Amino acid sequence: MSVSPLPAARSIAALREAVTDWRRHGLSVGLAPTMGALHAGHLSLVRAAKGACDRVVASLFVNPRQFAPHEDFERYPRDEAGDAALLAGAGCDLLFAPERALMYPEGFATSVIVASVSTPLEGEMRPHFFGGVATVVTKLLLQCLPDAAYFGEKDYQQLLVIKQLARDLDIPVEIVGCATVREHDGLALSSRNAYLTPDERRIAGRLNLVLREAIAALRAGAAIGAAEAETARKLALAGFTCVDYAAVRDAETLQPITDLSGPARILAATWLGKTRLIDNMAV
Amino acid sequence: MSVSPLPAARSIAALREAVTDWRRHGLSVGLAPTMGALHAGHLSLVRAAKGACDRVVASLFVNPRQFAPHEDFERYPRDEAGDAALLAGAGCDLLFAPERALMYPEGFATSVIVASVSTPLEGEMRPHFFGGVATVVTKLLLQCLPDAAYFGEKDYQQLLVIKQLARDLDIPVEIVGCATVREHDGLALSSRNAYLTPDERRIAGRLNLVLREAIAALRAGAAIGAAEAETARKLALAGFTCVDYAAVRDAETLQPITDLSGPARILAATWLGKTRLIDNMAV
Repeated sequence: MSVSPLPAARSIAALREAVTDWRRHGLSVGLAPTMGALHAGHLSLVRAAKGACDRVVASLFVNPRQFAPHEDFERYPRDEAGDAALLAGAGCDLLFAPERALMYPEGFATSVIVASVSTPLEGEMRPHFFGGVATVVTKLLLQCLPDAAYFGEKDYQQLLVIKQLARDLDIPVEIVGCATVREHDGLALSSRNAYLTPDERRIAGRLNLVLREAIAALRAGAAIGAAEAETARKLALAGFTCVDYAAVRDAETLQPITDLSGPARILAATWLGKTRLIDNMAV
Repeated sequence: MSVSPLPAARSIAALREAVTDWRRHGLSVGLAPTMGALHAGHLSLVRAAKGACDRVVASLFVNPRQFAPHEDFERYPRDEAGDAALLAGAGCDLLFAPERALMYPEGFATSVIVASVSTPLEGEMRPHFFGGVATVVTKLLLQCLPDAAYFGEKDYQQLLVIKQLARDLDIPVEIVGCATVREHDGLALSSRNAYLTPDERRIAGRLNLVLREAIAALRAGAAIGAAEAETARKLALAGFTCVDYAAVRDAETLQPITDLSGPARILAATWLGKTRLIDNMAV
């Protein structure tokens, strides 16, 4: 099948026309922003949107501004026809697939910067990242103006950054976080898992298990610093090439904590060869 | 009269309720953002909005984030009851007057940053300024979601910054610039004119005349650099305490130009004692 089974909007005007038409008929609209290379995690966002909203838009845009020059923008997997078929199967009503020049025309000069929650962890390791994410998500939200937008908890810090910017800039949208979807061995689904060799894939499955062991240790009374160090040690032993961080943090601010009296999250970022994997869980 | 003659919204929910109700009746909405201390320049924005839109909202918020610590936030003139009466007389339908804690609640962490056009001139003299303006204007536009928003050309660089951010972030609003309103001697209306002593007020009237003389010289063939230097010299001679800049620039980018083949603007910022005055004109 060479023709996309899903209507596609390739201009902001076409997107707004569809949304305006739905609104005129009293229908609510959900948005699931993606960079394509879709897996069951993305489709769970579409299904969550469809469960709560009358119509669902999925956007597909590999955002160059959230990749550093040395990162994998060029090799990031792209398959729009395959993605469109998956989206249609999950109940999506419209694909928004803008070209780069539509998102960042000549002379583009504006950035949305979120301080606080974007600063630690990913913000330290990938200083360009959240500026790129915050700006493109602001644009997508304002292009579509949905009632709600759906993001995966797998990118937990990103979810917090997006909630913060939507609240701070008074974007009239509800930001909804959706539970991480996992493989049979618990590996969090990620488009980047496609980069893994079979050997790396086996090791990757250990990441979530090590985090679960840390949570069990914390609940049994382990000190936070000790649990973090033990997590990093186990990941290195399991064969991860490098551990960017393994941290137990306040679940809302991502600031370091000294006890588990409030909601906490364990978050880790690790490398297998050239592939960077992240995961996180509620403690 | 102690009761405001104009309905006032003090929450975002109340503002949105009014705008949604108007939209439901097919009415268009214009927004005139102000910091209060209203003069005929502000009222011309309200009248322009009323001429193009069915309903007009004026916002009144003295934005602390666009004042540096040493600037005049505390002494900036405030008279909400007087302002409300003036707005009602100009055809305004709703006053939006949020408290500071509504605009910047505890934990507020997001900034809208415009590069390029915000960098020279005011951006060099007041490095905090356009970040504060861009962020609060983004918020006001997204709180109200008007069809069009009206800003004075007196703050010409600010107008360009706001056009840029609205375009870049895909805010669904038309940004309209309105001609500067002037006193009988040509002094551009400004809330800060109230700070001037009678002697300073007389000198202030020279600013627009010196700019007009520069335009005449440029049209008669004067070199741009010479005209800029002559403008600064005349302002100092007229009694201005300090000249921050007197510059002839590209009218869209505000970058330096070497000839007048494209649209150009002359812009100046000067001091009279503790009062800073700006003005600009098309060349």
